[in-house]
Amino acid sequence: MFKRSLTTVLLTALAIIVPAGTASAAGLSEQTTQLFQYHRGQDVALMLMLVAFLMMFIRRYEWGVALATLLVLVTSWPLYLIIHTGLLGNGLNIDALILAFFCSITLVIAIGVFLGHISTIHYLLAAVLFVPAYMVNEWFLFTYLDGVLDAGGSILVHMFAAYWGWGVILALRNLRVKDEPVQTSVHSVSFVWLASMLLFVLWPSFVTALLPPEQIIPAMINCYLALMASTLVTYLLLYALKRTIDPLVYTYALLAGGVAIGATVDLATPWQSWLIGLFGGVVSTLSFVYLHDWLLARTGVLDTMGVHNLHGVPGILGGLAPLAIAGASWSQLAAIAGTFALALATGFITGLVLRLFKPPAIMLDDAESFPVEDMRATEPA
Amino acid sequence: MFKRSLTTVLLTALAIIVPAGTASAAGLSEQTTQLFQYHRGQDVALMLMLVAFLMMFIRRYEWGVALATLLVLVTSWPLYLIIHTGLLGNGLNIDALILAFFCSITLVIAIGVFLGHISTIHYLLAAVLFVPAYMVNEWFLFTYLDGVLDAGGSILVHMFAAYWGWGVILALRNLRVKDEPVQTSVHSVSFVWLASMLLFVLWPSFVTALLPPEQIIPAMINCYLALMASTLVTYLLLYALKRTIDPLVYTYALLAGGVAIGATVDLATPWQSWLIGLFGGVVSTLSFVYLHDWLLARTGVLDTMGVHNLHGVPGILGGLAPLAIAGASWSQLAAIAGTFALALATGFITGLVLRLFKPPAIMLDDAESFPVEDMRATEPA
Amino acid sequence: MFKRSLTTVLLTALAIIVPAGTASAAGLSEQTTQLFQYHRGQDVALMLMLVAFLMMFIRRYEWGVALATLLVLVTSWPLYLIIHTGLLGNGLNIDALILAFFCSITLVIAIGVFLGHISTIHYLLAAVLFVPAYMVNEWFLFTYLDGVLDAGGSILVHMFAAYWGWGVILALRNLRVKDEPVQTSVHSVSFVWLASMLLFVLWPSFVTALLPPEQIIPAMINCYLALMASTLVTYLLLYALKRTIDPLVYTYALLAGGVAIGATVDLATPWQSWLIGLFGGVVSTLSFVYLHDWLLARTGVLDTMGVHNLHGVPGILGGLAPLAIAGASWSQLAAIAGTFALALATGFITGLVLRLFKPPAIMLDDAESFPVEDMRATEPA
Repeated sequence: MFKRSLTTVLLTALAIIVPAGTASAAGLSEQTTQLFQYHRGQDVALMLMLVAFLMMFIRRYEWGVALATLLVLVTSWPLYLIIHTGLLGNGLNIDALILAFFCSITLVIAIGVFLGHISTIHYLLAAVLFVPAYMVNEWFLFTYLDGVLDAGGSILVHMFAAYWGWGVILALRNLRVKDEPVQTSVHSVSFVWLASMLLFVLWPSFVTALLPPEQIIPAMINCYLALMASTLVTYLLLYALKRTIDPLVYTYALLAGGVAIGATVDLATPWQSWLIGLFGGVVSTLSFVYLHDWLLARTGVLDTMGVHNLHGVPGILGGLAPLAIAGASWSQLAAIAGTFALALATGFITGLVLRLFKPPAIMLDDAESFPVEDMRATEPA
Repeated sequence: MFKRSLTTVLLTALAIIVPAGTASAAGLSEQTTQLFQYHRGQDVALMLMLVAFLMMFIRRYEWGVALATLLVLVTSWPLYLIIHTGLLGNGLNIDALILAFFCSITLVIAIGVFLGHISTIHYLLAAVLFVPAYMVNEWFLFTYLDGVLDAGGSILVHMFAAYWGWGVILALRNLRVKDEPVQTSVHSVSFVWLASMLLFVLWPSFVTALLPPEQIIPAMINCYLALMASTLVTYLLLYALKRTIDPLVYTYALLAGGVAIGATVDLATPWQSWLIGLFGGVVSTLSFVYLHDWLLARTGVLDTMGVHNLHGVPGILGGLAPLAIAGASWSQLAAIAGTFALALATGFITGLVLRLFKPPAIMLDDAESFPVEDMRATEPA
Repeated sequence: MFKRSLTTVLLTALAIIVPAGTASAAGLSEQTTQLFQYHRGQDVALMLMLVAFLMMFIRRYEWGVALATLLVLVTSWPLYLIIHTGLLGNGLNIDALILAFFCSITLVIAIGVFLGHISTIHYLLAAVLFVPAYMVNEWFLFTYLDGVLDAGGSILVHMFAAYWGWGVILALRNLRVKDEPVQTSVHSVSFVWLASMLLFVLWPSFVTALLPPEQIIPAMINCYLALMASTLVTYLLLYALKRTIDPLVYTYALLAGGVAIGATVDLATPWQSWLIGLFGGVVSTLSFVYLHDWLLARTGVLDTMGVHNLHGVPGILGGLAPLAIAGASWSQLAAIAGTFALALATGFITGLVLRLFKPPAIMLDDAESFPVEDMRATEPA
């Protein structure tokens, strides 16, 4: 993604030199291209906020999720930009803004693994430790390696989020979280439906945010086809397996098509996109239904929001897809293996640092940060 | 709409042949025009999801509405594209994507008539039967007939949705639904307010999605003026009639201006738009307050979400508006009558097919699809 | 803002005369520029609706806030356009549409001061009285005065809203409102989180809505930096002062960076923007924590939504910022002082008029407008 965005930057630098009227073979001036990115960049930011609402199903732990999301956003986004542009100097443009939101949304996904495991104020520290790790992986994928295909972030965003988060909980080993009661309410889950359905619609802006103009519409169609397939197959599979639809599996796994299509959104045919989404939905559903409990039993630590099931496994699947359909080179495998190792390792170090602090007295509960006593006394839900 | 979009397609085909610098009289290249459609297309998809939240006022039946919406979307959208483009081949572009979302949003509106009447899994079948019927009507309006005015879908979308849905319930005759208790809660209705207010704002993207660039801003202004008028008059009329505002009438009928302006959004003056919206609000409010119960008594079947009151009657009004202000030909009347007949007939056939299956054991209740027992045991709402 | 938008209008008028190919130094035709404004204009309308949800924390008074918002919107928006364009004649373009939404969003913010103080139907009257007052202040800032810097509305929108609203309650003197019980529920406050987080993301569209194309991306980055700073510092300050986070301070004050950056969003450096946001967050938080109760004690009247704390004080701060960083002239001080006086005076007159009518029998309660008895009987929340 970064690599191709570099190409874009070079092409547009060229476009500035060439007279405006002939700026782009496709007929778009550099400024037009950048202004088209304005709204896709904003959509990525909207998605980041909606990820918080996707994670608000625990009825006693909603505001804490929103707060943690905001804290890691406002720490990581400026920090990424400061490093990326040399103290907010050269290159502070729309591409940089979007790359910074990619970094922050990866972190927001990642904290889903350990929400409730640490005190709220320590998310600030987690964010400071996350940004350099993410940027090293970005460099590894698109500068160190050559020819890695990942325009829509299957590897860079989703895989890295899941395994960095898992690195944190493996080091942190806060075993008490999994014994906390997790109850939902109608509307805590209705917020999840809202978030999931809006994320579905906005997803094309995420995977096309850094694509050149002529690839945007085809990629948009591919992205929607993948999401349609995962939304359909997740329902059919849950129905076949259980005859009932767990809303906390369905609202998550339906998005797996968007995760899985990330690496091939600009390369796949429409039918291939639909199939990649289909496989994404299948592996995500199976991960939620079977793998989640198995991992919990094996490791003893709880992936609070099941990030591994939506972002980890479908992210790997998406990263592998270019091997099947786009003749990707070995660097694609190196990208997947390297991201897995780097994310786990840097997450583990972060977890060790976070372990220096006392775990929160109250877990998975808004009472950790907010004065909720009066309200709870007068309202049952 | 389709017809005019065909004109657009032809014009843009021309634009591709003519050198880019002079591509469009208005100064926009074909690619720029298409990229401007990206976000309006996405807005239509957002509206489709929000229609689900508009229908979530029954406090025990929220997730089921979201699930049905998603299932008909992910079946109808690819199916429309497969037929429209010959197995996802030629013409898979932004216009096709938007036309497919028009088909799907029409279906999402239509299922509002019979939500709760059928088992969830049968929405998949309903979607498969809907798409060809919708496409025949699309052909009837814009290929068979000549000169039909309906840029914003008063006839194609709103009328067809209402009468196809009514065709289904008339054939299905599931009489038990109307005896189910329908209770609301503060927040089930607050989600409806959210959906209605966001639909208000997004509506211009729906009615301008296929308009040529120079008509977009004037149509946006017309659309907002119509919605402002219906929102105002609905309040005044409800206040005059009842001295109290039923939120489940108000949040729906306020949108009637958007339905009614559909056929003339590119033709009306600003004042005409405001008046069309005003009449839309009046007929919708009166339909909710009086016609709804009368139809229920006469037919014995329940239009669950009152689709006829927001989309049926204001859709007809909107379809007639070009006769008054734009000198429409007789084909406009043929369009309205033909859509009425075609929608009812194809809906009726769909209802007969759906009647072959057992009605759901539990109606208007999330328990039909989801495991809600534990949650309901611990939470009153 | 208006002034600079006038410049834009003049430049674009020029662009129409000059052949399209060379229309703009930056390579954008007038039509492209206008179509880019389409979505920013729509975003401003979305923000207006979300302001309603920001004010929905009182669990028995949610729908009433939405209704009041809609009523003042649908009265003020057409009225502004009618006056601005001479009965919807010349100049009814995207700039006018956005200026009208600025007027309406200012009013929606302003009614936050006196929500619950008046009967619902009187919001229509308040809107009719507001529009001319707002337009006089707009004329004062950008036609009478010369060189006022306020591209993003710190003075025009936020200051005017707060002091006009305060003018109303000072004249109205409905002292009973402050004795009404104000209880929240989990989800009434979760809607506030949703609104606040989406407003954060959409804010750049508000402050760039009327900027020329080449300033949009830098201003977007400045706006996000300011919001990141206020969101961070508000948390740290609340934590330092109280060790607990009042969600009804936090979700509001985090937006103060957006308010404060308004006047300098197109002039500040990125670091200056971050610092302005930081100061905005500090003064807003301190206003919520200390000033709010002091003003209530001194004046005896309740600013229902704490508008002064988010829009009044940070608005003044934002208005002063150009003096520090952009070498603003004395007219900047005249703009702030004049807006303060004009808003208070016209608000006071409005309050005197509204005082002619009986205060509502039920305050801060949806029962004032809606039939809620049945629902409340069956649902505790």
